[in-house]
Amino acid sequence: MNTLTLKAPYLVFLGDANDLLMAKVAKGIAHWRPEKCVAQLRLPGAKADLGLPDFTIQQAVDAGAKTFVIGLAPIGGTLLTEWIGLLTQAMEAGLDIASGLHMRLCDIPELVAVAERTGQTLFDVRVPKGDMVCGTGLPRKGKRLLSVGTDCCVGKMFATLAIHKEMAQRGLNVSFRATGQTGILIEGNGVPIDAVVSDFIAGMVEVLAPENSNDHWDIIEGQGSLFHPAYAGVSLGLLHGAQADVLIVCHEAGREQMDSMEGYSVPDLARVIETNLSMGALTNPTISLGGIALNTMNLSETDALQEIARLEAQFGVPVVDPVRTGVSSIVDKLETL
Amino acid sequence: MNTLTLKAPYLVFLGDANDLLMAKVAKGIAHWRPEKCVAQLRLPGAKADLGLPDFTIQQAVDAGAKTFVIGLAPIGGTLLTEWIGLLTQAMEAGLDIASGLHMRLCDIPELVAVAERTGQTLFDVRVPKGDMVCGTGLPRKGKRLLSVGTDCCVGKMFATLAIHKEMAQRGLNVSFRATGQTGILIEGNGVPIDAVVSDFIAGMVEVLAPENSNDHWDIIEGQGSLFHPAYAGVSLGLLHGAQADVLIVCHEAGREQMDSMEGYSVPDLARVIETNLSMGALTNPTISLGGIALNTMNLSETDALQEIARLEAQFGVPVVDPVRTGVSSIVDKLETL
Repeated sequence: MNTLTLKAPYLVFLGDANDLLMAKVAKGIAHWRPEKCVAQLRLPGAKADLGLPDFTIQQAVDAGAKTFVIGLAPIGGTLLTEWIGLLTQAMEAGLDIASGLHMRLCDIPELVAVAERTGQTLFDVRVPKGDMVCGTGLPRKGKRLLSVGTDCCVGKMFATLAIHKEMAQRGLNVSFRATGQTGILIEGNGVPIDAVVSDFIAGMVEVLAPENSNDHWDIIEGQGSLFHPAYAGVSLGLLHGAQADVLIVCHEAGREQMDSMEGYSVPDLARVIETNLSMGALTNPTISLGGIALNTMNLSETDALQEIARLEAQFGVPVVDPVRTGVSSIVDKLETL
Repeated sequence: MNTLTLKAPYLVFLGDANDLLMAKVAKGIAHWRPEKCVAQLRLPGAKADLGLPDFTIQQAVDAGAKTFVIGLAPIGGTLLTEWIGLLTQAMEAGLDIASGLHMRLCDIPELVAVAERTGQTLFDVRVPKGDMVCGTGLPRKGKRLLSVGTDCCVGKMFATLAIHKEMAQRGLNVSFRATGQTGILIEGNGVPIDAVVSDFIAGMVEVLAPENSNDHWDIIEGQGSLFHPAYAGVSLGLLHGAQADVLIVCHEAGREQMDSMEGYSVPDLARVIETNLSMGALTNPTISLGGIALNTMNLSETDALQEIARLEAQFGVPVVDPVRTGVSSIVDKLETL
């Protein structure tokens, strides 16, 4: 792929995080790719715990670690100057550094100098890699699934990671295609689609999920929403570039206001489904709805199961909460396609 | 505005262009902003002619010129090394340099050195300027018109420049808001929206066309098409960021295949109108269709007028060919809003 790939396994850095909310990236990596995590490294006072062994840099290198991953939440996360010594030490011990923080590793001259001296790589997952290309819209072989949403932060990444995991466990021929910082750190490669210049959104999704064998599935992480006043352009380019055969629509039960968007209501689920199918048909006329992933974290078990049953009756597709029910009914349906 | 502004008036450089197709940018500037053009500068052998006086750099400076504008077509246009001496001379004589070519002025070390030495500005209109911001979707005062299209290259820039000119001639309170390289060179400022990182498309259109007085119109140049497999994301971000009160839908009569997009038919005009209104209503629920700009260059006069009449009957709005009929019927309608 036209992107860099992180070398596994990882030493996961938690800083002095108090809890796993602050170390969201670390939590995601440890949850979805435990086989890639050698150990965690925590500063004195850290209370967050991934349940991995606490190793020093040298212990991690001795255990085979290749990349030091900064596991802190990207939003608002800054790179503290007190970490620079630690990152230097990691590179000197032979580790690459990967980060999804807003502040870029490659903008810190001390780190760039150490990387040049040691030959290690600084991997800013917010910075798109490789040549940028425009979309062609040409049909390509292989099957593709894309998650789309009623809003941001409704579980699009989680749903696609869960579907990918279930398909891999069933021995299907499947790849996860990451489009956001956390997804890229979890998978080890991908395209940070919201950081790509707008002319190239669809083209870079074509590169991310290229032609493949007829039985192969690309499970593509969605971003934003066609109904999001700030980010809908990203979502539409992603939808067109994906040429998705199957959409999974993600929604949070009970959310009424859009995330951080004053005055914007969460759009009606039926309209979101219809609009995504109608716009997506431009590049794949056989696009269809494969299921609904409903985030029911704010509902009781009874209410959640009732709501799931109600939506299944309304839309005639499998409805799951990836956390509460798993995604097997969706994968059952995919296996028939 | 959060963007650089070219200093007027201009010395327009035509290189050795054989015709005005090769010097599309120069032609646009001379046509739409003749008051900003002091003179043209042509290399030996050039056959293209804007009808402006042929001045040397010094004559142009003496006549008040402030910016040397490279007027060659951006697509495929490269900056020839033989021009570097001329550009150096222009900066030494006190001119800024502006270019919409793919090859950036600021990537040419010799030019950067001269700019630093002389204190002149290198203005690459493909490079977004200022802080990038995300969209808020918050309602803002003032009236806004956006051109949208069935495809690329159907006359969106021309239609908005023509409407802006007609409104200005009628003494209305109006601004042209450029979103593409040629438009920016014509207007002297703007945001090259397809070069903006995709997270910021809508936000940068909010910056380009900010809140204004209730009687003020922003006439915003559109890009791409919601039905373009490579660029629809740009078009949707532009539509949401514009919060347009009025859309002008642009179409080329008789075009059946999309420009440079193998296998893609030009979408049905009715569907393009309906989809743009429906998607645009997210950020401006009162959005309406203000008219249709039909490029009839491939039709005879009789056929063109017949087609215009047919579309007026079908859609119930003014239909114009900005070149053949002018845009006064659209502006008449805008004056009632």
